[in-house]
Amino acid sequence: MTNIKKYIIRDASKDDMHAVLDLIKELAIFENEPNAVIIDAEYLKAEGFKEKPSFKIFVAEMNNKIIGMTLFYPRFSTWKGVSIHLEDLIVKKEYRNLGIGKALYKHFLEYANSKKVKRVEWAVLDWNINAINFYKKSGATVFDDWKIVQMNEQQLSKFINKK
Amino acid sequence: MTNIKKYIIRDASKDDMHAVLDLIKELAIFENEPNAVIIDAEYLKAEGFKEKPSFKIFVAEMNNKIIGMTLFYPRFSTWKGVSIHLEDLIVKKEYRNLGIGKALYKHFLEYANSKKVKRVEWAVLDWNINAINFYKKSGATVFDDWKIVQMNEQQLSKFINKK
Repeated sequence: MTNIKKYIIRDASKDDMHAVLDLIKELAIFENEPNAVIIDAEYLKAEGFKEKPSFKIFVAEMNNKIIGMTLFYPRFSTWKGVSIHLEDLIVKKEYRNLGIGKALYKHFLEYANSKKVKRVEWAVLDWNINAINFYKKSGATVFDDWKIVQMNEQQLSKFINKK
Repeated sequence: MTNIKKYIIRDASKDDMHAVLDLIKELAIFENEPNAVIIDAEYLKAEGFKEKPSFKIFVAEMNNKIIGMTLFYPRFSTWKGVSIHLEDLIVKKEYRNLGIGKALYKHFLEYANSKKVKRVEWAVLDWNINAINFYKKSGATVFDDWKIVQMNEQQLSKFINKK
């Protein structure tokens, strides 16, 4: 008797957004930012399924349960042209090491390739060695000389008001 | 007799794309990647002025000449919500230190604030100390623990074909 777990990867629907939010929160905990998630499932439904959606999601489903997802959206390189940004790639903790993350990654890269983008881009935390090795092994380049800069809502508001 | 240089900042038009491309190429040289720019002005016209544009540009103009620009597009944070990415902020070399870069930056941040985005994000090269200090002084956070990962067209194609 085999014990092979079967799962499918498909486009997310509005009804998946509660499960997707749970995955986002699980990743935030893994990245040591348990209180960082301020959006809710309704916001994901509104932004992901409007006329010009803010993102697209593939989910991994096993026994009618969402156990992983990848969320991405277009970007633009002024050197290369249209590109795509992989914002999140998440597999539920108890379903890791079954190849589901790799399958989501492949599914996403096949989608990117079908869209003929000039570049695929994402970010990784420097201590997440497993992820870095996985990306490198897949042929991606991990850059050491670029730093990410951000202004959050409060910083932006402070900048605007001090003028 | 004063010698104050007057300039305006405005939305870019299709006709500005040749000048914008020149600025993009100037930045590529500054970033030690003189051959990195493979797009042309027609591509910028097509991608920036279609029904769902890939980006938006503000230009700085002095005596009917484009001397600076900033190019940006929407992104999405799964923690915070809709955000905006500043891809390029460029001032022509001979017009630097006149406050034009700061004015473009302000104009962009005011636009971002008017759109009620939850975050503004960009990337900076770690040796560009002037830029890093400028961003920090403006209230932005420069992150040390995130690395940028990319697959270019060739790497993507290699990944797809080796499966």
